[in-house]
Amino acid sequence: MTKITNIRTVRIEWGDCDPAGIIYYPRYFEIVDASTAALFESALGMTKYHFTRHYAFAGFPVVTTRARFIKPTRYGDDVRVESTIAFGTSSFTVEHKLSLNGEPCCECSEKRVWVGRDPADPSRIKSMPIPAAVREKFGV
Amino acid sequence: MTKITNIRTVRIEWGDCDPAGIIYYPRYFEIVDASTAALFESALGMTKYHFTRHYAFAGFPVVTTRARFIKPTRYGDDVRVESTIAFGTSSFTVEHKLSLNGEPCCECSEKRVWVGRDPADPSRIKSMPIPAAVREKFGV
Amino acid sequence: MTKITNIRTVRIEWGDCDPAGIIYYPRYFEIVDASTAALFESALGMTKYHFTRHYAFAGFPVVTTRARFIKPTRYGDDVRVESTIAFGTSSFTVEHKLSLNGEPCCECSEKRVWVGRDPADPSRIKSMPIPAAVREKFGV
Amino acid sequence: MTKITNIRTVRIEWGDCDPAGIIYYPRYFEIVDASTAALFESALGMTKYHFTRHYAFAGFPVVTTRARFIKPTRYGDDVRVESTIAFGTSSFTVEHKLSLNGEPCCECSEKRVWVGRDPADPSRIKSMPIPAAVREKFGV
Repeated sequence: MTKITNIRTVRIEWGDCDPAGIIYYPRYFEIVDASTAALFESALGMTKYHFTRHYAFAGFPVVTTRARFIKPTRYGDDVRVESTIAFGTSSFTVEHKLSLNGEPCCECSEKRVWVGRDPADPSRIKSMPIPAAVREKFGV
Repeated sequence: MTKITNIRTVRIEWGDCDPAGIIYYPRYFEIVDASTAALFESALGMTKYHFTRHYAFAGFPVVTTRARFIKPTRYGDDVRVESTIAFGTSSFTVEHKLSLNGEPCCECSEKRVWVGRDPADPSRIKSMPIPAAVREKFGV
Repeated sequence: MTKITNIRTVRIEWGDCDPAGIIYYPRYFEIVDASTAALFESALGMTKYHFTRHYAFAGFPVVTTRARFIKPTRYGDDVRVESTIAFGTSSFTVEHKLSLNGEPCCECSEKRVWVGRDPADPSRIKSMPIPAAVREKFGV
Repeated sequence: MTKITNIRTVRIEWGDCDPAGIIYYPRYFEIVDASTAALFESALGMTKYHFTRHYAFAGFPVVTTRARFIKPTRYGDDVRVESTIAFGTSSFTVEHKLSLNGEPCCECSEKRVWVGRDPADPSRIKSMPIPAAVREKFGV
């Protein structure tokens, strides 16, 4: 089954907001990071804890990201996050569209690489191809 | 209607965890802070953004807190948070019991004061009595 | 005096790192946000708390940001952050170069707008020109 | 040499503060967590990254903590953190006293356990005695 987009809703909390009373923008990156994990959880049928072990890898660190903050959100807002993935060989991109009551509030585009432990030094991480078994779950 | 306890479920995310692979304990305080807000939201029928304006106060900062971390949780865990409130005149306490699959993982007890802006200096906050209208919503 | 670049050193802490043992990337945005504040503090000779009051504005929220994560850092690393500002009329950009032992680890470019409280609705913020008195302190 | 107390100064940042304009209290736990790491770094002469490897353990998770928030701090404040350790066999306590311009703003007391990887399941952690070589560095 093709599974390319995932949607979830995130509540903005008091503690996510700054003295201006609006979301402190680094929190948006926490939100989209969890949204990328949720996208994989939805496709692979297991949590990140389990899928990193099942597919024996160390995570998918971000190499580049860019974001546009269109309209501030604030505590009590329930933000819709729509995340769409596109795969490369050992990397993928995710486009996140965040909206509140149908109005866009933030757009974020990220590129991530698939990494494993470096056999030469397990304290370091190293790029590796995305397993075919993972792609299949996404239908690509 | 008496509304003294609120229950919600919180997903522990990758970004909440530290290099030991378990939740970084300050995140528990973010979770229980949001749980106290959720308890009020549930009783008052509006979000913290709206109820601080509706009841004209500046928040309910914590004056003391203590926590016991019983069993580590990790990313992918859905933690149940049960929060029970007891009211004083211008303060209240909340007991939070966090559990995973029925097993306790954290207990936290906090005392908070109801504050408004200090009329003498609006950049400062000042203790004030909890409005009767708020207590009534909790049935106390 | 022209004051366009500010340099500071930031310690990466255990709590800034994720289960992969490296910095959780949203923390980089917290670091560069504080670096932009430090740049203004250095030029204006007062902290953000004081300069937002002195120049009567509500902050400088980010409208766009992009970052490249070149080399992971981890707890115990002391990262050098070099931040260079360029001014527009009611906005400015800051380029942040983060390095560890002379090697680049992260680059971040952000555009921010100068905002005040909206007179029509003080709970909202509104773009406004950067005061001449602020520019003068930067020598531009 | 006996090394029981460590003192450091921490800047409260804009992003550490909430819509009330004061520090969001979970940030205090991030501050004291880093202060405990700094105390060990000072005594052992290496960063947490290195001392967890050098002494082959997985960290010192908090089992209980309590805090009293005496006076709010806000962005731009440079808070003094004085941390004093007392050792048990496989646990230790740290008392943190935070002050601003000589006035106490927060007190925090924590108990932590020394843990290693559980040989039976390396994804789990397990209590172990604090090595004599570590105690010696503290002069106890």
